[in-house]
Amino acid sequence: MLARVLGVAEAGLANGIEVGIGDDAAVLQGTTRRLVWTIDEQVEGTHFRRDLASWRSIGWRSTMAAASDLAAMGAKPWCALAALVLPDDVDDHALEAIAHGQRDAASAIHASVVGGNLSRGPTLSIATTWLGTCERAVTRSGARPGDGVWMAGALGLAAAGLRALETGRGLDARFADAIRAWREPRALIAEGLAMAGIANAAVDVSDGLASDAAHVAEASQAQIVLFEAALAEDPALATVAAWLDATPLDLALHGGEDYAIVATSPSPIPGFRRIGEVRPGEGLRIEGPLGGRALEPRGFDHFAPR
Amino acid sequence: MLARVLGVAEAGLANGIEVGIGDDAAVLQGTTRRLVWTIDEQVEGTHFRRDLASWRSIGWRSTMAAASDLAAMGAKPWCALAALVLPDDVDDHALEAIAHGQRDAASAIHASVVGGNLSRGPTLSIATTWLGTCERAVTRSGARPGDGVWMAGALGLAAAGLRALETGRGLDARFADAIRAWREPRALIAEGLAMAGIANAAVDVSDGLASDAAHVAEASQAQIVLFEAALAEDPALATVAAWLDATPLDLALHGGEDYAIVATSPSPIPGFRRIGEVRPGEGLRIEGPLGGRALEPRGFDHFAPR
Repeated sequence: MLARVLGVAEAGLANGIEVGIGDDAAVLQGTTRRLVWTIDEQVEGTHFRRDLASWRSIGWRSTMAAASDLAAMGAKPWCALAALVLPDDVDDHALEAIAHGQRDAASAIHASVVGGNLSRGPTLSIATTWLGTCERAVTRSGARPGDGVWMAGALGLAAAGLRALETGRGLDARFADAIRAWREPRALIAEGLAMAGIANAAVDVSDGLASDAAHVAEASQAQIVLFEAALAEDPALATVAAWLDATPLDLALHGGEDYAIVATSPSPIPGFRRIGEVRPGEGLRIEGPLGGRALEPRGFDHFAPR
Repeated sequence: MLARVLGVAEAGLANGIEVGIGDDAAVLQGTTRRLVWTIDEQVEGTHFRRDLASWRSIGWRSTMAAASDLAAMGAKPWCALAALVLPDDVDDHALEAIAHGQRDAASAIHASVVGGNLSRGPTLSIATTWLGTCERAVTRSGARPGDGVWMAGALGLAAAGLRALETGRGLDARFADAIRAWREPRALIAEGLAMAGIANAAVDVSDGLASDAAHVAEASQAQIVLFEAALAEDPALATVAAWLDATPLDLALHGGEDYAIVATSPSPIPGFRRIGEVRPGEGLRIEGPLGGRALEPRGFDHFAPR
C-alpha cells in the first residue's frame, strides 16, 4: 500500500539510492561526506488540525518541518523516510494527498521520499526522518562572544497565518501570505548551505525565536542579545499583526513554525540580515530604544488559547 | 528533556558518531559501506498495551522491531533516532523507563540511540529509525527457483505469549518463555550477518510467516513452498499451543512479532534451518503429509478478537 502511495518514481532511484520503497529498508550508497540525520513528528491536534489545512498541506508541512533541521546544520537534503499512523477515517484518497504533499515538498528541495511505514492508530501522525550530507556541520554550541547574530527567513508570519485561520479568517485575502507561510512552509536549504562555511553556530526557528535562540546561548555558554528594531522592522509582519491585535515583536519572538535560520558569525552571511550579537555571559536579552531586558525563552504552543 | 532522558553516554559518541542528542540533528562520519535505513512505529492499542508490558518493555520492543528490518537486509546496526508522542498521563518516570528500554535494546545489538524528538499528543507512539551498514544488502526480490527456504529464530512463540497475557495468564509459569518472546524480542542481527554473503533474498517475519513469505514470492516472481512438518516441529511451540487451544501450525503461520528471518539460498546458511523451497510460479503453498494447498497471506492482527 505505502509502496504504491509513496512510490518513488524510477527516476528517484538515482542519486545514490539503490533500493527504495517496498523492501524491509532502503539501501543507499556510502558517502565520504558527513551524514546529518534527524527525525521529527507532526501530530494531529498538536501540530496541525485537518480543518485548517488540506491533506496535501499536512504532508508538505511534516516533510518541510523535518528538513528544516538539515538546513540549520548546513546540510544538503538527500532522502527521507516517513512513518504514518492513520485513523480509520483517513481514507485512501486522503493518504494519496498526504503522500503527494510529501513528494512535492521533498522535490522542492531536490530530494526524495524513499520509503516508509503505515500503521493504524487512533491519532493521525507523521514521523519523518531525513538524511542529508555536508562537509562540516554547524551545531548550536559554537557561538563566540563578538559574533553577530544573523537570520534568514521571516519571523511571525506563520503564527499570524495560524491565528487568522483559527479565528475564521481563512478566506480573508489580507492574510493570504501569512496563511501560505503556515500551510506551505519552506525549509531554507540554500540559506543553510550558504551559511555552512561561515557560521560558528546555527539553529532553526521552529518553536519561536526566543526559545530557539536560548538553545544556542545555553549550548554555547554565551549570551545572545537580540536587537528589537531588527525584529519588528518587517512591514508585512507589522500589517498582519495590526489586523490580529498582536504586536509584531510578540509574533516575531514567540510565534512558531517559521523555519527561519538563526546563525552566529563574525562576518556577514549572504542572504542573512543582522538581528543581534553574541556577548560573554549567559541567557537571552533583547535591546531596544527603551533599554534592554532579559527574555524568557517561552516557546510556541501550537493551539494554546491566546 | 529528551537530551537528558535519551542522553547518549560520552562513550556512545564514538563509532563514527560526531554529534548526538541535543542539536537539531545527529552528525555521523561518512562511510564507504552501503547504508541500510528503516523506520518503524509502534502505537499504543495497535502494537502494545500498557497493561500487558512494562514501560521498559515498550521501549525495548519498539527499538528491536525496527532493528529487525536491518537484520533481514544483512546489515550491521549503527545507530537509531526515535520520535515519541506522549499523552499527558505518561510522566517523566515512565519516559525514563521507556528510554531505558530503548538504550538497553540498542546496546544489546552493539549500537546506540543518538537522538530523538518528543511531542505531546493523545496517543502514545514510538517511531524508530535505524541506520545500519553492509557490503551487500539482501532484498526481498532475489529468490530463485531451486533455492531452499531457510529460517532463523522461533515462530509463533511471541503470539502465544501475547495470547497468554490477553487471557489473564501472565503469571502462569508455563508461558514464561512465550511471554518473554513477546515482551523482549531480539532482532537476529548475528543471523542476518551470517546470511548476508549467502542468501538470494530475505525478509523478517513481523506480520506472520504466511504474510511475509508472500512478500518474497511476489517481489521475486516465484513460488514459495513451505514444509508443514518443518514449521510444526518446535516442541516448545507445540506445548504452549496445546495450552492455548491453538494449533502450532496456525501460530507459526499467522502469529506475528517473531522477528525471525526467512531467507532463500541454494546452500545451507549457518544458524538457519530449512523450512521450504522456491519453485517457478507464484504465490505461497504449504505441503504436508496430506498433500499441498495454496496459503492465503493473512497477516497478524495484533489485538484482533480471536
